[in-house]
Amino acid sequence: MTLLSTSTDQLTTLGAGLRRALDGPFADKRAAARAAFPSDNLLRDPDLSIDDAREWVLNRLIEISEAGVLATGVPQSSEDPGNIADTVVAFETLAHGDLSATIKSGVQLGLFGGAVTNLGTKWHHDTFLADISSLKLMGCYGMTELGHGSDVFSLETTITFIPETDEFEVHSETPGATKAYIGNAAKHGTMAVVFGQLLVRGRNYGVHAILVPIRDDDHTVLPGVTIGDQGHKGGLLGVDNGTMRFHRVRVPRRMLLDRYGGVTEAGEYASSIESPTKRFFTMLSTLVRGRICVSAGAGIAARRGLSIATRYALKRRQFVAPGHSEGVLLADYLIHQRRLLPLIARSYALGFAQNEVTSSLVHVMESGQASEEEKRQLQTRADGIKALTTRFANDAVQEAREACGGAGYLSENQLTGIRADVDVFATFEGDNTVLLQQVAKALLGDYAKIWGELDTAGMVQATARVFGDTVMERTSASTLVERLTATVKRQPEATTLVDRGWHAWMFTERERHSLESLARRVRKAGKKFDALNQLGDHMLFVAKAHMERIVLEAFIAAIDATEPGEIREVLERLCSLYALSSIQADRGWFADHGKMSAGRGKAIGAQINALCAELRPDALSLIEGLGIPESWLGAAILED
Amino acid sequence: MTLLSTSTDQLTTLGAGLRRALDGPFADKRAAARAAFPSDNLLRDPDLSIDDAREWVLNRLIEISEAGVLATGVPQSSEDPGNIADTVVAFETLAHGDLSATIKSGVQLGLFGGAVTNLGTKWHHDTFLADISSLKLMGCYGMTELGHGSDVFSLETTITFIPETDEFEVHSETPGATKAYIGNAAKHGTMAVVFGQLLVRGRNYGVHAILVPIRDDDHTVLPGVTIGDQGHKGGLLGVDNGTMRFHRVRVPRRMLLDRYGGVTEAGEYASSIESPTKRFFTMLSTLVRGRICVSAGAGIAARRGLSIATRYALKRRQFVAPGHSEGVLLADYLIHQRRLLPLIARSYALGFAQNEVTSSLVHVMESGQASEEEKRQLQTRADGIKALTTRFANDAVQEAREACGGAGYLSENQLTGIRADVDVFATFEGDNTVLLQQVAKALLGDYAKIWGELDTAGMVQATARVFGDTVMERTSASTLVERLTATVKRQPEATTLVDRGWHAWMFTERERHSLESLARRVRKAGKKFDALNQLGDHMLFVAKAHMERIVLEAFIAAIDATEPGEIREVLERLCSLYALSSIQADRGWFADHGKMSAGRGKAIGAQINALCAELRPDALSLIEGLGIPESWLGAAILED
Repeated sequence: MTLLSTSTDQLTTLGAGLRRALDGPFADKRAAARAAFPSDNLLRDPDLSIDDAREWVLNRLIEISEAGVLATGVPQSSEDPGNIADTVVAFETLAHGDLSATIKSGVQLGLFGGAVTNLGTKWHHDTFLADISSLKLMGCYGMTELGHGSDVFSLETTITFIPETDEFEVHSETPGATKAYIGNAAKHGTMAVVFGQLLVRGRNYGVHAILVPIRDDDHTVLPGVTIGDQGHKGGLLGVDNGTMRFHRVRVPRRMLLDRYGGVTEAGEYASSIESPTKRFFTMLSTLVRGRICVSAGAGIAARRGLSIATRYALKRRQFVAPGHSEGVLLADYLIHQRRLLPLIARSYALGFAQNEVTSSLVHVMESGQASEEEKRQLQTRADGIKALTTRFANDAVQEAREACGGAGYLSENQLTGIRADVDVFATFEGDNTVLLQQVAKALLGDYAKIWGELDTAGMVQATARVFGDTVMERTSASTLVERLTATVKRQPEATTLVDRGWHAWMFTERERHSLESLARRVRKAGKKFDALNQLGDHMLFVAKAHMERIVLEAFIAAIDATEPGEIREVLERLCSLYALSSIQADRGWFADHGKMSAGRGKAIGAQINALCAELRPDALSLIEGLGIPESWLGAAILED
Repeated sequence: MTLLSTSTDQLTTLGAGLRRALDGPFADKRAAARAAFPSDNLLRDPDLSIDDAREWVLNRLIEISEAGVLATGVPQSSEDPGNIADTVVAFETLAHGDLSATIKSGVQLGLFGGAVTNLGTKWHHDTFLADISSLKLMGCYGMTELGHGSDVFSLETTITFIPETDEFEVHSETPGATKAYIGNAAKHGTMAVVFGQLLVRGRNYGVHAILVPIRDDDHTVLPGVTIGDQGHKGGLLGVDNGTMRFHRVRVPRRMLLDRYGGVTEAGEYASSIESPTKRFFTMLSTLVRGRICVSAGAGIAARRGLSIATRYALKRRQFVAPGHSEGVLLADYLIHQRRLLPLIARSYALGFAQNEVTSSLVHVMESGQASEEEKRQLQTRADGIKALTTRFANDAVQEAREACGGAGYLSENQLTGIRADVDVFATFEGDNTVLLQQVAKALLGDYAKIWGELDTAGMVQATARVFGDTVMERTSASTLVERLTATVKRQPEATTLVDRGWHAWMFTERERHSLESLARRVRKAGKKFDALNQLGDHMLFVAKAHMERIVLEAFIAAIDATEPGEIREVLERLCSLYALSSIQADRGWFADHGKMSAGRGKAIGAQINALCAELRPDALSLIEGLGIPESWLGAAILED
């Protein structure tokens, strides 16, 4: 294990420019966070026992907290509005080091603290927030239950109002009600936000959240609370995940986080939101920041992996060849370029989209002026970007590991550790498959609304309008994209393969066509489970097609915001490589739907090779642009 | 951690029949090995420290050895011919439990013992084999060096003959000559087979192997030997990988493994093989069993993962739906079926191909009648099946992990451990990318031979012949496949999507077309690195296309060997699902090369869904057929 100290992060001009472009609207915040982040002790020894790993991570969080970085942007009281962008940047900065520390900070500040902030009211804020952000009060976020996993609407834990004592009784009647995979539960947490069905005078008001102390000051588990230690996991060994079960645990009435619904002093249920379903989804919507953070963290994990593998490829030689008597650099093999460069391009693409989602989060949470439509859209994009980026992070880090051969398997080169940690990012904060289904359902919602009263003929007409009016038209690149595709529409194949208008057109067509056909199939299926079930793979395709288009448009907007010159030229190449890789991955679909000729399909591979050759000389700058300081990578293979 | 004891392995009739079919020619051997395998102590506690893990694994090997399973088929002396099939079956049986134990056994018996057996002569056999197979003499296989990785032709270690003392001097002049990733080196090995350049009287005779003691009886490292501990890895923590460096270490002349070349008593180099290159490749060819074992082990790892996820999907419910008030079984969601069933089908497909490669290994190694052509073909298929199966194992276990959600991430459910262990299977015993290139080069060899003297017109004619005569026609299903495709050729799209002849035709066309165009491009590129480098991705495509065809034909042969009835019908469905998944993965290629119409391309998805629906009722039997006893899975989520 190499534990590294910060050193100056020397960049090429191009690398610095790319980094600024990729950091985008958050460039200043990110530069400041990187500068403030204590980096002497970034990475954990993989050899530590679970107990030691957990203690290391807690101490690391304290260290980061003392440096003033941990709780940046987190509100400390009811008076303090906090700063959403700062919290996201702080989280992703932590992801440059040990990911257990990152996730534990997310549990503590994002989930536990976030629930108190967003679901609680003044008393909760003033009583708990300062201690939460200083780590004095360590807490858990008790949502997921063993019995239901992703189906949080069906939680079995009950929170029953006891009028006689003005208390709530928290209870897990069945084993399925056991809270599971809960960070901070096994060891460090002294309080938990517990989600459960709120029962008041015999009536179920749906899922609410309540604060429940689980350990006393000596860290002894409190009566009625049963904790299980979930022990060894596939990664994130420094996070103390556990189970929690409650046997008729009583807490005072005011412990209910009652922003969207609670019990009055008179002992009556009261809520500003009539419908229990709407109330529940309003509560859940406050989770959106967590999902965006997880996506941001996964993006950083991918960049670390790609940085290690690419820097290694720029120094490692294998096999001599004519004209390469010292051996050929890995980075000079076409197949090695094909392994890494499209992933680097995608890393930029997802990064630009991530910036847009974060900006939209800030707008929705802080402007006080966001429309319902904007809120819904943020939810959909947060779901989608999380699913795409966490999948990508797993694939990219795995590719990076394999691209480093046997060296990639040694823990001292970091890749397997990052890969093991990031694995579960595909599952927590919303299982990717479930999230993609939600994205598709949200897109379908627009059709259902309009189709309600139409016959088939009217439906066909309306369909075109829905896509044009409500599904599209919502990215910062919309006007630009419209201009780019205007001429392409008529003769798509008259363009070159690097014509941005053609890319945009292909991405839009993939989404429009697959969404419209899904909408028709859904209408036909009605509410029958078996019929709807058969559309599952189609839904996933639509969700991905939608998000790919959003990502491309974010890339296009970012290029548009960059001055003409070398940086912009490199971004153009990266964008083409990203776009063509995405088109090639669905090449069969495009062929089957008459969107691409055989000749053009065949030419894509050669164009991707050509882009790799064009980008190869800038490989180091591309990696610098990803923003991970070289000295933070901590991979032994990169040392001389 | 659940450590399980054996219990009876109750199977459905269909499951038992599928298992027999998949076990194929090795059904009796495999059943016997499963029965003899000590299974009380199958799985290692993931919480053990590295030191404890290494000791656990060594003790586990001793336990398996004492049960008489470990060294089954391994020759004990120069008189003992051994039994190749038994060694492969023993290795794959070990893969049902802790994979560190499996790999450590492979290092000891397959690599170290295998080198002594295959590269040594009578004295080596009689002196060492018995102690190797009883684990009394633990050894290392010192091939890979830090400086060159896959490029073993360029090893830097020197083995210099010292006539004055009748010794060899083993020396690592440069840091790059350090042997790396060597199992048994960090801790348990007392001797190593060391590969290096053999220098006799100033002349380099190329790579040879020599036995070098590295530790004394007290386990103290011997003078001149420097050992490094490679410590924590991405998985396989129970294998003590390390580095070895030699400083002018002397060993007696007879320690050279001299089957293919050595130094006479008179101090002169002598070899039965004139060409150093040919000599080297002959030595390397003895590695083929190791590669086949790694593939077999990866196949078992995949089956374990798929067994856990599928059995979980058959008991876990998520989300209520109309008609499913208890919640829908995961196995009843189409998207869940799409995740797991094609992987199960591919698991069968690769298993059948693995059987054929193993049979061919037995023939080449034991019949004494194998032609050069058969030997070359075995090498190619071993390379190819290893690359395909280890890739598959990683992907399948990862999908299984994600399909189990958060539970999949807990080590007690085994999936992350299997995934971490199997990761490096893609790299060791031949990096998958390098192996696939070798496959493509071997296929190209046939063209080069014939094209040598031809002009372009003659070349085109010859091309068709080469494919028909030498690339094809070598599987046990050849005649059958010829019959199946005879009518399809004329009108491929007049068939149904489950027509086996159409599958075979598509697979053959994919291989033929891509290989022929590659051959032409290679001829045009000549020997220029830059031009050949540009063909890298094309080569990988060809290698995979070739292997997919070999796999399909193995599946077809296995079906043909099965009595008509339920088992055969299920195999037919699995084969169709495998074939269509493979075609769909390259759907763009087929479209771009005019091999499939848009309408047919679109229909494939629906056909895959239909096959999933047909196979769903047999899901449990399919898993039973994969041959992993339920009680051996050791996954906590499967307990009641």
